Amino acid sequence: MRNSNLQVIVKTLPENIPQPEDFALVDGAIPEPGPGQVLVETMYLSLDPYMGSALKGRHITAPVAAGGVMPGETIGRVITSNNPDFAEGEIVYSRGGWQSYSVANDPAHLSPYVLATANAAQKVPSFPGIHASSYLGVMGMPGLTAYAATAFLSELKPGQTFATGAASGAVGSAAGQLARIMGARAVGIAGSDEKCKAAVERFGFDACVNYKKEGWADELKAACPDGVDCFLDSSGGKILQTVLFQLALHARVILMGMMDQYNSPVPLPGPNLGMVMAKRATVKGLIVYDFYDRMAEYRKYAAQWIAEGRLKNMEDLTDGLAGAPAAFSRLMHGNNLGKVIVKVAGG
Amino acid sequence: MRNSNLQVIVKTLPENIPQPEDFALVDGAIPEPGPGQVLVETMYLSLDPYMGSALKGRHITAPVAAGGVMPGETIGRVITSNNPDFAEGEIVYSRGGWQSYSVANDPAHLSPYVLATANAAQKVPSFPGIHASSYLGVMGMPGLTAYAATAFLSELKPGQTFATGAASGAVGSAAGQLARIMGARAVGIAGSDEKCKAAVERFGFDACVNYKKEGWADELKAACPDGVDCFLDSSGGKILQTVLFQLALHARVILMGMMDQYNSPVPLPGPNLGMVMAKRATVKGLIVYDFYDRMAEYRKYAAQWIAEGRLKNMEDLTDGLAGAPAAFSRLMHGNNLGKVIVKVAGG
Repeated sequence: MRNSNLQVIVKTLPENIPQPEDFALVDGAIPEPGPGQVLVETMYLSLDPYMGSALKGRHITAPVAAGGVMPGETIGRVITSNNPDFAEGEIVYSRGGWQSYSVANDPAHLSPYVLATANAAQKVPSFPGIHASSYLGVMGMPGLTAYAATAFLSELKPGQTFATGAASGAVGSAAGQLARIMGARAVGIAGSDEKCKAAVERFGFDACVNYKKEGWADELKAACPDGVDCFLDSSGGKILQTVLFQLALHARVILMGMMDQYNSPVPLPGPNLGMVMAKRATVKGLIVYDFYDRMAEYRKYAAQWIAEGRLKNMEDLTDGLAGAPAAFSRLMHGNNLGKVIVKVAGG
Repeated sequence: MRNSNLQVIVKTLPENIPQPEDFALVDGAIPEPGPGQVLVETMYLSLDPYMGSALKGRHITAPVAAGGVMPGETIGRVITSNNPDFAEGEIVYSRGGWQSYSVANDPAHLSPYVLATANAAQKVPSFPGIHASSYLGVMGMPGLTAYAATAFLSELKPGQTFATGAASGAVGSAAGQLARIMGARAVGIAGSDEKCKAAVERFGFDACVNYKKEGWADELKAACPDGVDCFLDSSGGKILQTVLFQLALHARVILMGMMDQYNSPVPLPGPNLGMVMAKRATVKGLIVYDFYDRMAEYRKYAAQWIAEGRLKNMEDLTDGLAGAPAAFSRLMHGNNLGKVIVKVAGG
């Protein structure tokens, strides 16, 4: 155990894409757990695109304050427990933030699904062969997002075409694989040839199109000859606009992220909705918190699919908390490859 | 019967809001009906916002060509019939266009619901007390649009708040009244105090807000204290953007028109969709042609509601085909009050 609490604080709230210099590394005190609380040592920290929106005060979770510790989901180990439900050494999920140590509130009095501010520890299940950090990715919130999108909102029928942005990212890669498990074709959209290669070769997408290449709309059309029956969007902007022109009749569009918006100092206009009308499409907003009561169900299925080799993940791992700001900036620039995880202490 | 066919042709395809000088009045030949066809004398011509989009080649119906007769729905009288199903003197609905005489194709071989190009005559039912021109408005396509929106897409529950743009227009006024019949509150949005007065006093809306007045978003909020559960949008632009910020959780937004787009030389960006995501809202495209198999059902209900005084209409009537271009321009400027009808021949 360290003798201080290494923390990353938000130095300045970024106006555009977050840069490493927007954050500062400080040494804080290790907090004392109160009655019913547990002290958790962070093992893995999850970096997620929505944090970019939270930094601008525009996310559904609480806004981030300058000077405070950057929030984030973590997997950690209970160091001290004042709660009979948690043993020392137990592995827990919590919203520990970008720091080495955090205190989780009395879980008996807090829903683990309370948005953002409540930090309640949850026991991490121990499915065989699943690494602890996976509970921040394919077995955690991003995986559940993909499950909500495909199993509950997509209305996918076998043989239909499912397209997703961020195809090699945590949510997109899982969603494409789940769509294939449901009998659909999966077509990815990603920002580099390397990402497209991963989508096809590692995650089994039927095709993947690099949206940074000229003529990608035609490539998408070729990959979706009958149109896109369901599109999972994480852009909230230009990619969505292009895909709208490729929708099949009665298509479903699921909005699960707004990367273009997260990186902008002001809210941007969205896509022209003419094709939504023309194609009698349905656009649905997805907030994963609505589906947390299905986490256990999802994990049971996911563990099985992982064991069968049908659901793969890929981690973009940074070693050490000091690297978190740069890793986060890379993520918000779209330069990550796979689920971005920071290894904070020995996992 | 005239001895020539007075016609309005499209002189130039308008880039912005259509002006009267984009059209020209010409004298054409009265067409000869072929085998199975009927010659129809136009009594009433319907002017509808979607025509602005068709003039730009962006509507789901066939684009309009410069030099051709302007298309449009009509109510007319059969003058010559080569079809045993239609008697001379019978009142029919057809897509006769902006002209005094038109030929309707063999109805046995054409679906009356074929988009745009097929002009098949349909008999107009004779509900007591319903004026023939109403079959272009509250008893026709605009009324059916309102019925599709409220009865089939809105998922309205009694007590919820339904808001609609163009509240004194053909679709909006019917939709608000149907929402009230379904037990919902109806809040209108319209472009003048006079229109708002009509929405509240004639159509029974609970409230109506003039979006051309500063602070109208706050007024809308006051009129919808629990948020907007369902919004019927005909703007595709700024009004929609404002209403998105007033959505209740799980709200439904129905896109039935894109007035802002129709009047623009190029497709415009749409609203920022962040609130669709945050409110887990659903945005649906409505194309009324999908609901034509429910026209008879709707008319039966509507005739009853009209008889009971629960469904009112209001016509903005222009006398004479020569006035159609100016009336259409007024409509596309939003300066009409009620359903825009041109009386072409004695009704």
